Formats: sequence, structure tokens, C-alpha cells
Amino acid sequence: MQAVLLKDFGGPEVMYLGQAPQPEMQDGQVLIKVHATSVNRPDIVQRQGNYAPPKGDSEILGLEVSGVVEQVCESETRWKPGDRVFALIGGGGYAEYAVAHSGHIMAIPNHMSFAEAACICETYLTAYLNVFLLGGLADGQTVLLHGGGGGVNTAAIQLCRALCNDVQIIVTASSGKVERVIELGADFVIDYTDESFADRVKEITSGAGADIILDHIGASYFAPNMKCLGVGGRLVEIGVTSGIKAELNIALIMVKRQQIIGSTLRPRSVDEKASIIDSFQSNVMPLFEQSEIKPLISHRFPLEDAKRAHELMESSQHFGKIVLEIRS
Amino acid sequence: MQAVLLKDFGGPEVMYLGQAPQPEMQDGQVLIKVHATSVNRPDIVQRQGNYAPPKGDSEILGLEVSGVVEQVCESETRWKPGDRVFALIGGGGYAEYAVAHSGHIMAIPNHMSFAEAACICETYLTAYLNVFLLGGLADGQTVLLHGGGGGVNTAAIQLCRALCNDVQIIVTASSGKVERVIELGADFVIDYTDESFADRVKEITSGAGADIILDHIGASYFAPNMKCLGVGGRLVEIGVTSGIKAELNIALIMVKRQQIIGSTLRPRSVDEKASIIDSFQSNVMPLFEQSEIKPLISHRFPLEDAKRAHELMESSQHFGKIVLEIRS
Repeated sequence: MQAVLLKDFGGPEVMYLGQAPQPEMQDGQVLIKVHATSVNRPDIVQRQGNYAPPKGDSEILGLEVSGVVEQVCESETRWKPGDRVFALIGGGGYAEYAVAHSGHIMAIPNHMSFAEAACICETYLTAYLNVFLLGGLADGQTVLLHGGGGGVNTAAIQLCRALCNDVQIIVTASSGKVERVIELGADFVIDYTDESFADRVKEITSGAGADIILDHIGASYFAPNMKCLGVGGRLVEIGVTSGIKAELNIALIMVKRQQIIGSTLRPRSVDEKASIIDSFQSNVMPLFEQSEIKPLISHRFPLEDAKRAHELMESSQHFGKIVLEIRS
Repeated sequence: MQAVLLKDFGGPEVMYLGQAPQPEMQDGQVLIKVHATSVNRPDIVQRQGNYAPPKGDSEILGLEVSGVVEQVCESETRWKPGDRVFALIGGGGYAEYAVAHSGHIMAIPNHMSFAEAACICETYLTAYLNVFLLGGLADGQTVLLHGGGGGVNTAAIQLCRALCNDVQIIVTASSGKVERVIELGADFVIDYTDESFADRVKEITSGAGADIILDHIGASYFAPNMKCLGVGGRLVEIGVTSGIKAELNIALIMVKRQQIIGSTLRPRSVDEKASIIDSFQSNVMPLFEQSEIKPLISHRFPLEDAKRAHELMESSQHFGKIVLEIRS
């Protein structure tokens, strides 16, 4: 089959369209004929050689696919060839075929395209897991989201607006993205180059601070994040683009009853992922089915243009998801 | 009324038995004729001048009482004069009378003495809140408890054994307390002076580490705690006796999906405390009612001997709770 392969680890230029063996299904897995996949930030890190896939997962890039079920195991009861599906996978999305665990697959709503369906698993699932299941966002609370137009951030804005009432959404973003972030549902946008975002959050919340902060910046944002995290607040750490070491004041998190939660999706066990997807299917998929929210596609490229797609993501000029189409 | 007062902040000698005005009930409160109270570590810190009571609470020491309801508000529906009760209070326990919020009061089981009932609120509630409600300890997991014979620690050992199946309980304690800690329900005891407790925990758990760690030591234990906290583990910080600053590796808590939870009981709102007590009443009180667990009293003193009681706690020679009796 055709797949995007790596000559070496490095910049976008190391990727090329080549031939790879079709993946083999293990028990409990389903073979999917891929129609679309999408680019996620971890793909970049993996391409650079800094994020090896978990044991047993494909070395090919790509954490999610949409397509049609091609083949199932004898024991399979839920899926059958021909089903339109999308799936979370541990790797292998940039290819004509991919395997997924049966419990990591969901049905594509009737009105939804393959391109749209390829945008849901990694970002909406990440946003749902971290802001809701771990962060516990509830009606009337304040959430601070970093990351402007990124996939997880835009998904989080949509989910916060759709799943809770009276949530105050504060977003840090580059100045060029302010309008679109507001349009998507944010109440306040703070310029991300403004280092005093903590003061601005405290001002907006009349000193109370945020109930939930979703952060992928890491070290350099840790002190300001803690400064504007409210009593009982939760800081969910899902990335460390600025570094990994931070100074923690234990007395302060005690007195303020705060939680610091580290979270990643990819290395979780098959069962853990299936359980998160079950919850997502029940609580979030109805929003897509009833078109209350819609996957936000920034750009589409054919698979062979993976290089351009990665260059775009690294430029941070996109707003929403970057899709790679295999069969359009 | 008689109460233990402070001449000044300082050592145990600043306490004396003096006269104080009887506390006045606010709406929603109940006046209790105190029979017993107990000494908790925060009493020491407050006596030293380092832990002011929350606004609106008595400045008199003492975070819990047992006794008999003396007077209730007109609106009171749950309690009536003559009821044998025990209560969590924000302060004011070292006295002949104390006021408590109606929702922070529980009925004393028939067979239980006032001295025993005065030992439940602060330590068992703290252990329950942190190990179960926040830590989420579940059947088959491993818990690491620091603090040998202290009130919270001994309560936590009893609750872990009684509320979960197949929990592996590892305790750090001084060598003189090993036998009693084992008798109480611990599976493994590690000498607390052994700085490599993290290695020992990893050895006991075949490398997996602990699922829950309850820590009141703070800074100096932070690195070893993180070293032996397992994947998905939770470190609950309830004290900082060794200091407050620690270096956090954000990448590591992400990859291991760990949570660091800061927690204190005293500054929580009236409603939050009532809700914790409701849960405690349903899930823990039946264990006391059916004598499956019993409050562990180390020593009893009359109220006027508060100085000796504090000296004992500061010597850490006790095992379990130190009770002060007002009317025995």
C-alpha cells in the first residue's frame, strides 16, 4: 500500500510517499480502508524523532483515520465491512490502510464527510478527556485555554460552549486569530505574547481565577498558570513545548485545594482508551450528530502533500484542523 | 465558661485554663456542651501563631468536639437538646461549650464514648477525603502512607483496610512503631529515617509504584514520592512540615498521567464540609456503628492538662489520638 514514510528523522522534507506492507489485524482489531487522516502536533514531534509510538503500534505517522471497514476478525460483533467509521489509532494513519482496535472506532454520522470525521478523534477526544473527564468543568465555571487556533484548543472552545451552561471561556491566542476565536465561542481573548496573562485572567474573574486551565506550553507558563488558578482549580498539563521543569509551591496548592494533572492519551491501555471513547460516544457524539458542533477544518491536502501540511502546522498559520485526504 | 486560652503564641506553656464568653450561635448552628475534644497537629501550628482560624470561627484551639446538644436555632430540624453528638468545627473545641454548623454534626453511635467520638472528625474525615474522595483509592491498589502513629495516618490505615479489598498498604514509620502499624492493618512498614523509601516501595510493588500517596511532609519528600508514584498515581499533599518548594517535572507527570492534589479541610466552605460529612456519614459511619473499626485513643488528659497533651504530640511518642476530656 502507499504510505508516507520517513527517510530519516528531521524536518518536513524527510517525508515521502512510498510503499509499505498493509498492516496485519491482531485479534480485536479492524482493518480500515483509509479515506482521510489529519495532522496532529505529535506527528511533528514523532517526525523529528522525539516521540516513538507505543510498542505494538505502527511506526507510520498518523493518530486518527476515517474510512470504510475493509475486514474484521471472526470475533468481531460491532463492525462489518462497508461501515463508514473513524478511529483513534496509536499510529499508521498516513497510509491507504490502517488497523484500529474495535473499541476505538466510532460510526461516522450520516451527514458527515470523511474529511470531517478524520478531525474528531485526537483533538476532540483530548479536549473532552482533559477539560471534562479529568478537569471536571461544570456549569458556571471559568476555563482558560492556551493555544489560539490549534486543533485541541478550537475543539475545547466548542465543547466548553456546547456541554456546559454559563461557562466563561478565556483563550490566549495570537492577535491574528482573535476574531475567529471569539466567533467560535470564547468570551475573552488574551494576546499570547502578553506575559501577564495571569493578571488579565484575575481581572476578568474579579480576582477569583480560573477553575480549569488546559496547558500545553509547560515550564514557562507554569508560574503564571498557578498565579491565575482559582481555589479548587485544576491545571491540566498536556504538553511541554517550552520546557519541562517548574517550581511548585506545595503550601499554595494545599491552601487553595488545587490539582495539577498530567495527561496524555496515546500511551494509555487499549481498555482505558475504549472507556474514554465510550464516554465520548455518549456525551459528545450527539452534538456532532445533531450538527450542534462541526469539526473545524482549516486546510485539506492530498496525502502526497504531507510535507506542505506539516509546514503549515509548524507555521501556526492554520485555524482548526489540517486534513490529509487519501481517497477523496 | 472555662476554656484553654493563649497568653501569647509560642510553646505549650502559653496555654492556660481561663474564662471566655460562651460562644453565640449563628443561624444554622447548634450549641454543644462539650464532653471531649482532641488534639490535632494544626492546633500546635495555631498555638505557635502560624495558622489563624478562618474568618468567623473561634480563636480558641480545637477542631472537633463531642458532647450533648445544649441549644438549637428555631429553624433547626435535625438536632434537639440532649442529643449525643460529635462535630467538626473551625475552632473552639478546647472549651466547655462550642458551636457547630448543623450539617457538620453527626450522632454518636450508642456504644461509643464521648472520648472516642471526639477522635473521628478531624482525622478520619481528613483520611477519607484525601485517600478516597480525592485520591480515589480502589480495590487492588497500593497506597503509601507517611506518618507512623499520627492520627490521620492511623485513621487512613484503618479506612484503607475496611473500605477496600486487596489494598496493599505501605507505611513509613519510626522503628518503635512498626509492630503497632502492622497490627492496625499495614502490609509493609518502612523506617521513615531511611531516605530511600522510594526504592523500597518500587521493590515491594515490583516496579509499579504506589497508586495513592498521602503526604504531609512536603518539600523533602516530593522527589522520592514522585519517584515511587505509579502510572496514573495520585500524590495528595496535606502538609508541609519539611518545607514548601519542590521541583516538578511536567513531562514526567504527563507521560505517567499523574496527579498532584493539594488539600486542606479547614478553609472549605460550610456547604463543602457538609457535603464531605454527608458522604462520610453514609460510607464510613456504618463501620464505627458496627464496630468494624474503633477510634484509636493513645492518651487522655483533662482539659486543664492541654500543655502536657501538646508536649506529648510534639514528642511524637503517641500512637493514635490524644483526647482532652472536659466532663468525664
